[in-house]
Amino acid sequence: MIVDFAERAHNHNWDLDPVVRSLLDTDFYKLLMLQFIWKHFPRTQVSFSLFNRSSSVGLAEVIAREEVLQQLEHVRSLSFLKSELIWLAGNTFFGRRGIFEPDFVEWLGHGFRLSDFRLTVREGQFHLEFSGLWTEATMWEIYALSIINELKSRGAFKGMSEFGLDILYAQAKAKLWAKIERLTGVPDLRVADFGTRRRHSFLWQEYVVGAMRTALGDNFAGTSNTYLAYKHNLEAVGTNAHELPMALAAMATSDADLKSSQYRILEMWQNTYDREIRIMLPDTYGTTQFLADAPDWVTDWTGQRIDSKDPYVAGDEYIAWLEQRGRDPRKKLIIASDAMDVEDILGLHAYFMGTIAPGLTPRDFNSAADLNDPAKWTPNRRIRFSAGWGTLLTNDFRGCHPNGGNGFDPASLICKMTEADGRPAVKLSDNFTKATGLRSEIARYRKVFGTAGVARIPVLV
Amino acid sequence: MIVDFAERAHNHNWDLDPVVRSLLDTDFYKLLMLQFIWKHFPRTQVSFSLFNRSSSVGLAEVIAREEVLQQLEHVRSLSFLKSELIWLAGNTFFGRRGIFEPDFVEWLGHGFRLSDFRLTVREGQFHLEFSGLWTEATMWEIYALSIINELKSRGAFKGMSEFGLDILYAQAKAKLWAKIERLTGVPDLRVADFGTRRRHSFLWQEYVVGAMRTALGDNFAGTSNTYLAYKHNLEAVGTNAHELPMALAAMATSDADLKSSQYRILEMWQNTYDREIRIMLPDTYGTTQFLADAPDWVTDWTGQRIDSKDPYVAGDEYIAWLEQRGRDPRKKLIIASDAMDVEDILGLHAYFMGTIAPGLTPRDFNSAADLNDPAKWTPNRRIRFSAGWGTLLTNDFRGCHPNGGNGFDPASLICKMTEADGRPAVKLSDNFTKATGLRSEIARYRKVFGTAGVARIPVLV
Repeated sequence: MIVDFAERAHNHNWDLDPVVRSLLDTDFYKLLMLQFIWKHFPRTQVSFSLFNRSSSVGLAEVIAREEVLQQLEHVRSLSFLKSELIWLAGNTFFGRRGIFEPDFVEWLGHGFRLSDFRLTVREGQFHLEFSGLWTEATMWEIYALSIINELKSRGAFKGMSEFGLDILYAQAKAKLWAKIERLTGVPDLRVADFGTRRRHSFLWQEYVVGAMRTALGDNFAGTSNTYLAYKHNLEAVGTNAHELPMALAAMATSDADLKSSQYRILEMWQNTYDREIRIMLPDTYGTTQFLADAPDWVTDWTGQRIDSKDPYVAGDEYIAWLEQRGRDPRKKLIIASDAMDVEDILGLHAYFMGTIAPGLTPRDFNSAADLNDPAKWTPNRRIRFSAGWGTLLTNDFRGCHPNGGNGFDPASLICKMTEADGRPAVKLSDNFTKATGLRSEIARYRKVFGTAGVARIPVLV
Repeated sequence: MIVDFAERAHNHNWDLDPVVRSLLDTDFYKLLMLQFIWKHFPRTQVSFSLFNRSSSVGLAEVIAREEVLQQLEHVRSLSFLKSELIWLAGNTFFGRRGIFEPDFVEWLGHGFRLSDFRLTVREGQFHLEFSGLWTEATMWEIYALSIINELKSRGAFKGMSEFGLDILYAQAKAKLWAKIERLTGVPDLRVADFGTRRRHSFLWQEYVVGAMRTALGDNFAGTSNTYLAYKHNLEAVGTNAHELPMALAAMATSDADLKSSQYRILEMWQNTYDREIRIMLPDTYGTTQFLADAPDWVTDWTGQRIDSKDPYVAGDEYIAWLEQRGRDPRKKLIIASDAMDVEDILGLHAYFMGTIAPGLTPRDFNSAADLNDPAKWTPNRRIRFSAGWGTLLTNDFRGCHPNGGNGFDPASLICKMTEADGRPAVKLSDNFTKATGLRSEIARYRKVFGTAGVARIPVLV
């Protein structure tokens, strides 16, 4: 064996192993939203707050504050490469060219910057705040989440032997493969990687995406990670997030204005984007009230993303609503993105994309074989179903530590808008446990929106 | 990423990727036997024959004959390095220095050579014969077996993608680790690597041995592979094999001489080696007759290796025999080496090294936890038990192929002595299925030795 002297010296001397290698290393919906914000809210001031929902894991005890600062500063030192900008301008997204306007791309290259941030430690937890222009603060969300998650993984590496690390990754690969194999050959499956923010690491997400593409072929719908889409010729997927309705709601000047803001944001969005990008996120203030009071043009939208309601219930509710409004649900799309794992994907696919044999339930569908068994299931689409597979795709190392440690278990880190235009921002969601915002504001919002169809579901990841 | 130009060019131009990297890359017992043969049978002519017991796998269809020839010629081009010879002379084996005499080590360095060989292909199978001086033919066995087994693995790599190979090894590592974990923490466990001849590859055996040492510490008794012992500071283990009694039996001039040859070889061996190296292999012509007719001095031997009989039965038989001859079995050793896997190791350890709670059987011991549960098991040694873990340690890739192929399943390749001094050699063993030799000779041997205690057990690996 000949020693690679340069590599060896480099390995012992590098300054920083960056988590974020490119400003494209973010969810694609962030870029769609950024253009939207740049166009409609170029002067709106906002604040975001990042914190750990799973309080049992004291992240500041396993990650040095200094490391977080270095990584955040590194992201601030990045700019979009010319090749990346040209790709954004010239690539086809959702089958359509020119989604990003030349002026926006020009601004990304020369006007874009990231806001200041404030990192504090309280009771062993990091609290990270981003305040400033919405266009400058919004992009922090994914960079910061993936940084803290990857630094958490690196913290868990400490003290492990080279051999232990090898077994860790071997077991994680075997676990990943066992999951993917269960999906291989499911007819008409659509599953996408939504796991950027909570990934174990960038390189692991890249590996996972490669495995998905290899095993699932066209049934792999793409990745939410724009950089991976760019680097590996994949579809970039994702549309929009809660921050849009939250900002509009915060800026509302009356209860009536607040109530209607959830539809106003859709109007603005559909003036900007069309077709497959018109995927609504009706759970911000409760899906049931959203659908009940929605103007009829909302039925024109392509589909909805289900992010906090039991997806079986939410899908059925959407189908019933569409039928009641005289629309054909089989042309519409639901995307389930909340704590998906392989069992959920198989069960939901069975439930929405076909007819389950009498006596069986979605829980009886545990592999592609079950969905290819005519005695169990017949393809018969009720609505188009697609899975956005996140944390449990890109960060499922449970049971993989060779000594049984749980240092690689995912933490439930989230980053939410807390203020827009100087006013508190609130999310209610379809799950009481997932509401964010000041308690008094949550109470006020609940009065306006009600709590129809809202449940209490434990948050796993 | 900086390209290592030299490595890249090298990777695309190498001549031969050798399977056997050193003449030490053989079972340690081969070296103990080689010294014995060099001392006592320096002019004896023998033949060995290598063939595939699992006829379903047509090895000549997945391995080019030319490749086998190249690898065999490569071994013939090797000589013992000075550092290897100095280690053989100076190292402690079984706690004793100077096991290898200076004259023998000198001869290894300057007089040793490998005999000619003849490689033919019949019905899709390789048949490999080694004929010549016993000192020149005997060493081929392990080199040739590991060459054909590794070339079989390389054949199965063909057509696999880089990603598929990665998943293959990830799954094999996870499988290996799951096995080893079940042994971690078993009190007084003794388990050794006996997997050189049937290994997936040299590098995989090296990995496996490293995993065993890391996880089992002192409970890992060492490796039969002399080169790995040398390279990684491990105990080299193993004592002797069937070829010794087989040669003596072949050279016997009468039925009485034949019958007593199985003890004569032990006499010669104990004049050469002492203590832990006095491990007999009583199954060559049937263990039951061997023990029944054994002279009393045979009870002085340290223990026996069980290679073809159900080890529960063989261990009990040995214990009863020792007690009947007035010896304390708790001071003796049994080494089970036939098709061991983790379940066998746990069950045999439970059975021989302690007292199993009423209502349980050895099959109920599936992990170290069971052996640390006082409600299930109490340490209480009946005889010292040690496991020689072979094929299913170093070549268990069953179920690891990402596309479900079985190209990595182990083949049952064996190499047996067929002639000594111009006369046919025979092995009967405790399993009718494992007998080797001419049919007429097997019949003659069965008349002399009988068939008491011989069973018909399917051969797995």
